[in-house]
Amino acid sequence: MISLWLFLFPCLSLVRVVPAEKGLEFPQYDGKDRVLNINDKNYKKALKKHSMLCLFYHAPVPDNKEQQKQHQMTELVLELVAQVMEEKDIGFGMVDSLKDAKVAKKLGLEEEGSVYVFKDDRVIEFDGLLSANTLVEFLLDLLEEPVEVVENALELKAFDRMEEDIRIIGYFKSEDSEHYEAFKEAAEHFQPYIKFFATFEKSVAKELTLKLNEVDFYEPFMDEPITIPGRPHSEKELVEFITEHRRPTLRKLRAEDMFETWEDDIEGIHIVAFAEEEDPDGYEFLEILKEVARDNTHLPDLSIIWIDPDDFPLLIPYWEKTFKVDLFRPQIGVVNVTDADSIWLEMEDEEDLPTAQQLEDWIEDVLSGKVNTEDDDDDDDNDDDDDDEEEEEEEDEDNEEDDNDDDDNDEA
Amino acid sequence: MISLWLFLFPCLSLVRVVPAEKGLEFPQYDGKDRVLNINDKNYKKALKKHSMLCLFYHAPVPDNKEQQKQHQMTELVLELVAQVMEEKDIGFGMVDSLKDAKVAKKLGLEEEGSVYVFKDDRVIEFDGLLSANTLVEFLLDLLEEPVEVVENALELKAFDRMEEDIRIIGYFKSEDSEHYEAFKEAAEHFQPYIKFFATFEKSVAKELTLKLNEVDFYEPFMDEPITIPGRPHSEKELVEFITEHRRPTLRKLRAEDMFETWEDDIEGIHIVAFAEEEDPDGYEFLEILKEVARDNTHLPDLSIIWIDPDDFPLLIPYWEKTFKVDLFRPQIGVVNVTDADSIWLEMEDEEDLPTAQQLEDWIEDVLSGKVNTEDDDDDDDNDDDDDDEEEEEEEDEDNEEDDNDDDDNDEA
Repeated sequence: MISLWLFLFPCLSLVRVVPAEKGLEFPQYDGKDRVLNINDKNYKKALKKHSMLCLFYHAPVPDNKEQQKQHQMTELVLELVAQVMEEKDIGFGMVDSLKDAKVAKKLGLEEEGSVYVFKDDRVIEFDGLLSANTLVEFLLDLLEEPVEVVENALELKAFDRMEEDIRIIGYFKSEDSEHYEAFKEAAEHFQPYIKFFATFEKSVAKELTLKLNEVDFYEPFMDEPITIPGRPHSEKELVEFITEHRRPTLRKLRAEDMFETWEDDIEGIHIVAFAEEEDPDGYEFLEILKEVARDNTHLPDLSIIWIDPDDFPLLIPYWEKTFKVDLFRPQIGVVNVTDADSIWLEMEDEEDLPTAQQLEDWIEDVLSGKVNTEDDDDDDDNDDDDDDEEEEEEEDEDNEEDDNDDDDNDEA
Repeated sequence: MISLWLFLFPCLSLVRVVPAEKGLEFPQYDGKDRVLNINDKNYKKALKKHSMLCLFYHAPVPDNKEQQKQHQMTELVLELVAQVMEEKDIGFGMVDSLKDAKVAKKLGLEEEGSVYVFKDDRVIEFDGLLSANTLVEFLLDLLEEPVEVVENALELKAFDRMEEDIRIIGYFKSEDSEHYEAFKEAAEHFQPYIKFFATFEKSVAKELTLKLNEVDFYEPFMDEPITIPGRPHSEKELVEFITEHRRPTLRKLRAEDMFETWEDDIEGIHIVAFAEEEDPDGYEFLEILKEVARDNTHLPDLSIIWIDPDDFPLLIPYWEKTFKVDLFRPQIGVVNVTDADSIWLEMEDEEDLPTAQQLEDWIEDVLSGKVNTEDDDDDDDNDDDDDDEEEEEEEDEDNEEDDNDDDDNDEA
């Protein structure tokens, strides 16, 4: 079937007309079949043949033409990824949840639409954006060592900068230490979603206030790590602790696990904050948000998703329409994940950011149910009108300036 | 013609099979024609109708089937972007360099394969990655205000963090100042490629050591800005100074102007550094590189392109093959842009990063022509053999460990 689709290949990659110079040629699908249709007969061989096997688990292909095309496109995304990764010894396949139900069960595939990667004796689920870019990056991350070694003060600075991610770091005697071995095994359970670091240097350990065989857990955006109790740790103890503490108070939405994150709602809702980190107002808002998250990390039901709109340009207009918010400025709200109904904290303009205290009060109202997505449904339209009136007032104040053409962008 | 391609729509966006929850729905092309075929008769109307007009300037569509498909795909990328941006009042069109030569000349279109955006009385060329993501982000950036206002210490911190970008910042009395007006006009010349900031706050200006009406130019990665001489400045003076100082000693490759940057070679070559900022070794190497750039920013012929492989996952295998380098670790080399021939600084492994002095010596050798891409062409094969031998030796040293499965990834 793929051969029929050959002519589509450039759509899977990117368009570049006659590059004058060499060195930046994006790959285009060459039409070769690399993705297997996995079945009872070939799955064992496929597992054995490659150091990694990457399987897309999908619902039966329906009669509906539109959905058929969508399915074929997924196949082509996989074909392009398979081609790009050709020299990395990774196998690719598709598993039909009806036709190949037996194989799926044996392999432990559960969520239709997910990609499962088999590496050594582990299975890693990918429930992120199924684009060639994201999948290639994910697979390359899986090819790296599960633990990064921090050797000196400069590398420690790199570690310190990664406040967006959950990070685990341990101090061990040497690469041969059995406790380091257990740590590495634990790391493989979470690769590439959670980053593991180790140091064998006393000076680095001292800087981190790590004792020998001690392991610290850094929640995203928190100043202080939690020391995992009971050192030295077995692989199992580490895995259990990390699994238990995995959902942070504040996390950033990432393409590689965006759908998984979205599914991890609390009683059907998410607190969502939009803030562009590269924008002064967005940065300022984010700093306030981090402060509130730090002060309230003890609340088990508090989990805020931060979305940097810059990471998802194609979704910006969709979000603006669905949530009725202006994403040129920071926003925080509650989103109901069953119907995408939402309610947003009112800010007059981007200079009117809430204080940490105001934000904390609002979050308290969300957690208590006082602020919720249902109450406002009657007067939605009125709210919009209010906003328009406010905008007009602002324009009146500003109309000394002669940039009338830019009315749309006053809040940019 | 577009209607024939309707069935392709999902390939332009991303694939998501039956999302269980709402809030992250990626747009898919709905099949409506929004992109105009621009000609003598309709271009004036199109310019008048929209606040922004976005034109793809292309070579005549050839007989070659493959190139035809590629052209149609570009059209579909534009259609999806037009759909996504529907409510932002942007017009979209295609201009054929042969059929519409007259219009192209009138509009000043020159480079085939570029997108030209008409906004007010300006034309902005986009010579970056023609993907829906990159183009949408670019257009959204153009819709923002050309100058960001920095109001307090926290927002100043956001400004300080953007060391990757050329930044211009000025201190003015108020939004009504005529010098601020000139500054804004200058900013529009460079939007969205160069970021302009202003402050009206004495405390912020003091922190930046800015006098009234003074404008500072921050080269990427440099500690100290250059004060643009001769304040207060006219729009023209600002534009001239920035244009003259635009090519930095060290710059990061960005999707939105990657081809333009690549075309800006010096005598047919680029010094290219690969370093993953999120990786401790990559970060360490980058810090060394920045130090060397700072110490040598006086050299007019020195311009290094830093590529973070994480930003271009699809190109990683291509680069590894073309340049014969391992991108799991930092690399620096010289690339000839006419044939992508290259030569790379030897590092035994990722722990063997060069010192700043070694890097400086190597760069000196590149600038003097002592290190060049031609000399090694005879013994390329031998070089590869040497590398293999070195790798084997390393493996022997490491084989106490039991992770034999990971031989491929030792340097990950």
